[in-house]
Amino acid sequence: MTGWLAIAGLGPGAAELITPEVSRTLAEATDVVGYARYVARVPERPGLTRHASDNREELDRAGQALRLAAEGRRVVVVSSGDPGVFAMAAAVFEAVEAGDPSWRNLDIKILPGISAMFAAAARIGAPLGHDFCAINLSDNLKPWDLIERRLRLAAQADFVIALYNPMSSARPWQLGRAFELLREELPETVPVVFATAVSDAKEKVDIVALKDAIAGRADMRTVVMIGSSRTRMIARDGKQPFVYTPRSAEV
Amino acid sequence: MTGWLAIAGLGPGAAELITPEVSRTLAEATDVVGYARYVARVPERPGLTRHASDNREELDRAGQALRLAAEGRRVVVVSSGDPGVFAMAAAVFEAVEAGDPSWRNLDIKILPGISAMFAAAARIGAPLGHDFCAINLSDNLKPWDLIERRLRLAAQADFVIALYNPMSSARPWQLGRAFELLREELPETVPVVFATAVSDAKEKVDIVALKDAIAGRADMRTVVMIGSSRTRMIARDGKQPFVYTPRSAEV
Repeated sequence: MTGWLAIAGLGPGAAELITPEVSRTLAEATDVVGYARYVARVPERPGLTRHASDNREELDRAGQALRLAAEGRRVVVVSSGDPGVFAMAAAVFEAVEAGDPSWRNLDIKILPGISAMFAAAARIGAPLGHDFCAINLSDNLKPWDLIERRLRLAAQADFVIALYNPMSSARPWQLGRAFELLREELPETVPVVFATAVSDAKEKVDIVALKDAIAGRADMRTVVMIGSSRTRMIARDGKQPFVYTPRSAEV
Repeated sequence: MTGWLAIAGLGPGAAELITPEVSRTLAEATDVVGYARYVARVPERPGLTRHASDNREELDRAGQALRLAAEGRRVVVVSSGDPGVFAMAAAVFEAVEAGDPSWRNLDIKILPGISAMFAAAARIGAPLGHDFCAINLSDNLKPWDLIERRLRLAAQADFVIALYNPMSSARPWQLGRAFELLREELPETVPVVFATAVSDAKEKVDIVALKDAIAGRADMRTVVMIGSSRTRMIARDGKQPFVYTPRSAEV
């Protein structure tokens, strides 16, 4: 039995943003496990079985991957972005902790990837160039009250704020409420970046002031970044401005 | 004139963690600009001029790179990790904003890389699997009071906290003070991960409880990650435990 489990980040979408480590590991795998949209990004080849599942089945998927590895298969669980950021790595370790004790001795590796927020930031300048935080806006697994508390404290700390999973059909009002709350804490001119499907054919990146931010702009593939009080815009002729947060916090 | 400027992330150290996008762009460059340690990671070749500078000269270096691009050169500014995270991208945009107005119309691209904190997290499990923040502990460009305030608010928000630049000869006491303050806000059993030189031959990753965290363990190449109240360890026979933060915040 020489099975192993790798939890790999495929990056935001473009093939050029997949690390050689991930590509090599996929080439050595017997099984790929993940949400159907991400599994589809791994080309078919003889000797590779692709196990696609629905979204929101993370724990079942993690258990399936661990069982396959325990049987001696070479398994890659794929996430988009980085697997450690609101993705499959935490789900796999939840399954390890709760599951068969022998799973703790499996060869488990995490292969980092280009995260959605850094790919999004790169498209617009350097909005995350100073202290920042990342908040998953989904209230499936945490109470909404806690999210509001975190947003308020993050604004008071003057972090740049990156929001993951800001919007879905099951989560229609949360982002609007987040903007409302942040308008109470931050200058209304703070830049807000909506970055959707970065590095993919459907990429769309917009910048608005916090006072004009409308939740309906976001969808499931959007990362929203809200500047700190120090985040700046650099106007350009006929082009989208650059958005960046200076390294210095001195006024 | 077909000059351009790319600000590229070389990742934490291993060649396998450099994206194909960055490798391709380096192959097209006429000039590489950066801190000597990072420039040394780009192999010499005919037609490529490597401009190495000291640490702490970010703004001069940014200006040099912009001038070269304006002269028609194809310039890559290299950072380790991701260029948008406490690295050269913000410095370049500071130089753009303050410098020659024509620089705003240059072709400037940011090429994301595997950040130090995600590479570090991958080595140990999924410590950043829930909401988190990243704080630069250097007080060169911001007052120490602000850093203390951010640390306290981050702990109150129950973010996992990643600390960049925790320690140097010019910054000997700050990390110890940060631990002291965090012990007032967080359970003393919270796991603290010290990850040094990840993916490099000198890699060293340790886990201790917050009550036992000693600042002297860190150096210039260390990322320190302090768990939230929910961060967990999974013991393993004869191996380092896994550290992860569950997706759920429900008790």
